[in-house]
Amino acid sequence: MKAEVLTIGDELLRGEIIDSNKAFLSDRLLTLDIETDYHASVRDIPAHMIDAFQRAAERSDIVLVSGGLGPTRDDLTSEALARAFGREMRVDAEALAGIRAFFESVGREMTENNATQANFPDGAEVLPNPIGTAPGFMLDVERAVFFCMPGVPREMMRMMDEQVLPRIAARVPGAGVVRARLLRTFGMGESTLDADLADVAASGDVSLGFRTSFPDNYLRPLARAATEGEADALLEKVCATIRERLGPVIYGEGDETLAMVAGRLLAERGASVALAESCTGGLIAEKLTDVPGASAWFKGGVVAYANEAKQALLGVPEVMLAEHGAVSEPVARAMAENVRERFGADLGVATTGISGPDGGTEEKPVGLVHVALADAEGTQAEHFVFPLDRTRHRQLTAQVALDWIRRRMLGFVLEGPSLLRRRGGASAPGGRS
Amino acid sequence: MKAEVLTIGDELLRGEIIDSNKAFLSDRLLTLDIETDYHASVRDIPAHMIDAFQRAAERSDIVLVSGGLGPTRDDLTSEALARAFGREMRVDAEALAGIRAFFESVGREMTENNATQANFPDGAEVLPNPIGTAPGFMLDVERAVFFCMPGVPREMMRMMDEQVLPRIAARVPGAGVVRARLLRTFGMGESTLDADLADVAASGDVSLGFRTSFPDNYLRPLARAATEGEADALLEKVCATIRERLGPVIYGEGDETLAMVAGRLLAERGASVALAESCTGGLIAEKLTDVPGASAWFKGGVVAYANEAKQALLGVPEVMLAEHGAVSEPVARAMAENVRERFGADLGVATTGISGPDGGTEEKPVGLVHVALADAEGTQAEHFVFPLDRTRHRQLTAQVALDWIRRRMLGFVLEGPSLLRRRGGASAPGGRS
Repeated sequence: MKAEVLTIGDELLRGEIIDSNKAFLSDRLLTLDIETDYHASVRDIPAHMIDAFQRAAERSDIVLVSGGLGPTRDDLTSEALARAFGREMRVDAEALAGIRAFFESVGREMTENNATQANFPDGAEVLPNPIGTAPGFMLDVERAVFFCMPGVPREMMRMMDEQVLPRIAARVPGAGVVRARLLRTFGMGESTLDADLADVAASGDVSLGFRTSFPDNYLRPLARAATEGEADALLEKVCATIRERLGPVIYGEGDETLAMVAGRLLAERGASVALAESCTGGLIAEKLTDVPGASAWFKGGVVAYANEAKQALLGVPEVMLAEHGAVSEPVARAMAENVRERFGADLGVATTGISGPDGGTEEKPVGLVHVALADAEGTQAEHFVFPLDRTRHRQLTAQVALDWIRRRMLGFVLEGPSLLRRRGGASAPGGRS
Repeated sequence: MKAEVLTIGDELLRGEIIDSNKAFLSDRLLTLDIETDYHASVRDIPAHMIDAFQRAAERSDIVLVSGGLGPTRDDLTSEALARAFGREMRVDAEALAGIRAFFESVGREMTENNATQANFPDGAEVLPNPIGTAPGFMLDVERAVFFCMPGVPREMMRMMDEQVLPRIAARVPGAGVVRARLLRTFGMGESTLDADLADVAASGDVSLGFRTSFPDNYLRPLARAATEGEADALLEKVCATIRERLGPVIYGEGDETLAMVAGRLLAERGASVALAESCTGGLIAEKLTDVPGASAWFKGGVVAYANEAKQALLGVPEVMLAEHGAVSEPVARAMAENVRERFGADLGVATTGISGPDGGTEEKPVGLVHVALADAEGTQAEHFVFPLDRTRHRQLTAQVALDWIRRRMLGFVLEGPSLLRRRGGASAPGGRS
C-alpha cells in the first residue's frame, strides 16, 4: 500500500501557515503500517489540483486530501476531483440536511454557499463532520481511493480517526496489525535515552521512535504482528522493558501532561498544593489550573515578582532578603513554607531564579534557579543553572516543580543534587529530575 | 517566475517532524513577488528524488530544495540531482577546505563521510554554510535553477537570506519590489474585519491577507511597486487607511504580543500592575512575566482559586462571597481593588469566571466571566459569556484583561457593555473590546 498526502490552499503556498496536517495524517497511517511516499501541496487553482489528483491516482493506493471543502469560491476540491476523473457532481440529500441541522444548532442561517458543500462527485461516500459545516468524502478512482477532509485541523483529525482510518483498515488485505504508544519522559536527555534503550528495538517487529517536545522527551514504541492480540502483547512487553529501565523518568502516556499527572496523584491522595512563584511568574499555576477539576486539589498561588510582594504576601523576612538576596535557598524555602501555611495546603512549592536575559551577576548567573517543596515532613530545596533563553528557562523550571509534586506524591524524597530517591529504598532507576 | 519547494527526508514522510521549512521559503520568495506553485516532500529514496527533480525542472523556474545534504548514507540530494540530469560528481577543493576548517574550529576530527559533503554535481556553484558542515549549492538545469540547502532550519534560513535570495533577485528581469507588514488585532471577528476592509485591496498593487491566531486576528497588507521607495510608500498608505478604519482594534505590529504592548505602555507611563486571577489561574501573570524586563512594571499577583484564598489573601469579605458567589461583579471589583492595594500597584486587574467543563448553573452558565480593573480613579467591571472550551475560555479572558490594561494606558474608559470609549471623546472607531 502506497500512500500520498495532498493539502490544498493558497495560504500554504504563500507560507502564511505551517502545514501540520500532513505530519498528522502520515503519523496516523503508520499505525496501520502504511508508509507515506509523497507529500504535496497545491494552490486553489483547478488545473494544478486536477494535475495533482491524476498524478496521485497513478502512483498511490491511498490519497488523503485536506483543504478546499469550505463554502467559498476558493474551495474547489470536490469539483476538481470530479473533473480530474470525468465524474458528474451530485447533491447528497442527507449531507444537505446535516449542514442545515448544523446551522440550526448554532443559531445561524444556512447560506446558498453552504449548500454547495453538499455537492459531491458521483460515486462518493459522504463522511460526516460533526464539528463543522464541511462534510468529507471517499471516492474510488482506478487503483486509488481518495479521502477528502476539511483543512481545519480539529475537524480533519476527528474525521481521520473516526471515519477514514477504519475504512482504510478494512481495505488492507491480510495486513499485519500495528500498535503504538506514546511514553512521556522528563529528566533524561535524548542521547542517554537512546543509549539506554539501544537493544529494545533489536527485532524487526518492534521499532522505537524518539521525539523532543521541550522540556520533555517522548518515546514511541511500535509493535507489528499478525493479529491485534499479538501486537498488543508484543507492545505490552516492550513497554514493560522500557519502564523497567527508566523507572520514574516516564511520567505518563498519550495525551496526559505532567500537570495532569501531578493533579491526578494529588486527587488520588486527597492532597492539595499551593504555589509561590517568582521567576516562573504564574506558569506553574497556569499549567495546573488548565487541568479540568483543578479546584479539588489546587488552593492557589502567589506570583511574588517584586521583593515587597515576597515580604507582604508571603511573609519572607526583610532581613533574609537583604542578607541572601531574593534568589537564594533560604528565600525559596521560606516562600514554600509560608505559601503552604497561608493557603492551608498540604504541599507548598516555590521557585525563585534569574530567567534573564538581564539580572545576572558573577555569583548568581542568569539561569540560576532555586526550587523548594514544603510539606508536613519538612522542606526540600535544590538549585539548578539552566543555560537557556527566558522562555525555556521558565518552562524547564515549571516542569521541574511539577515533577517534584508528582514524585513527592509517589513517595520520593530529595537526596543529593537533582536526584530523587524513593523513601527508604534504593536509588530510583534513572531517577534524575 | 514559477517556484517550487522540495523538502527531503524520511522523518517528514513519517510525520515525525512538522515541516516548517516550506512555509519559511515560500514566505521569503514572496518578498521578491515570486509565488510558490508547488510544495512537495519525498523520502530518502533516489528514484523518488530523481522523479521529483525532473518534474520540478519541467514545471518550475526556481526550485528550492532542503534536506539530504548531511554526511550519512541517507543524505543523497547531490548524488540524485546529478543522476537526474546526467551530471558527473566532482570534489570542490574550496568546499573541502571549508569543511575541514569548520571541524578544526569546533575541535573535532573530520571523518571521511564529512568529506563527501564537498562533492557536487558538475556545474554547481557552492553556497557556504558558516554555521554547519553541509555547504549548499546552486545548479542551472534546463529552464530551472535549483538551490539546494541543508534541512536544519537555522542553517537553511541563513543560507536562504544570505546566499539564495540575492542570487534569485539578480535573475528576476525588471522585477517589482514587494513590501508586507503584519498588523495584529484583537476584539473584532474575521468576517467583520473582512467587510470593513473590503475596498482596501481594490487595486492590483495591494493585497490584504487575513489569519486567525486565536484569540487574535492578523492582517497582512502587501504592496507591490517598481522600486523599494514606492512599495514602502504604498504600504504606508494602506496601513494608514486600515488604522483609520479600525482604530484601537489594532494593538501592534510584527512580533509584538499584546502582553508586550501592555508592558511597554505601562513602562512608558511609569505605571505598575498587580493581578488577582481566579479562572485564568495565572495565565495573565505568565504572559506578562514572559516579557523581558517585566519586573519594572509587574508587581505580582494572586491566583485565588479557592474561596478561602479570595478571603485570606485578597480580603474579599466572606459575606460578599456568600451573598453573590465567587463569580460575581462585586467579588471581581473587590479582588481588583484589594490586589491593587496589597501590592501597591497603580492598576489592579481581576478575573473570576467558570471556564468549565463543569461548575455551571442555569443562572451562571459555563463560560461566564467577570473582569474588573481598578486604578486611582475608580473601578471598571464587565461580564462576558464566552461559549468556548476551558483552554480557549481562559485564553480569551486573559487577552481581554491584557487589552483592558493597554486601553487604560491609552486613556480609554469603560462605557456600556464591551465598549471602551476614549476619555471625553467620541466612541473610539471600532473600539470593541
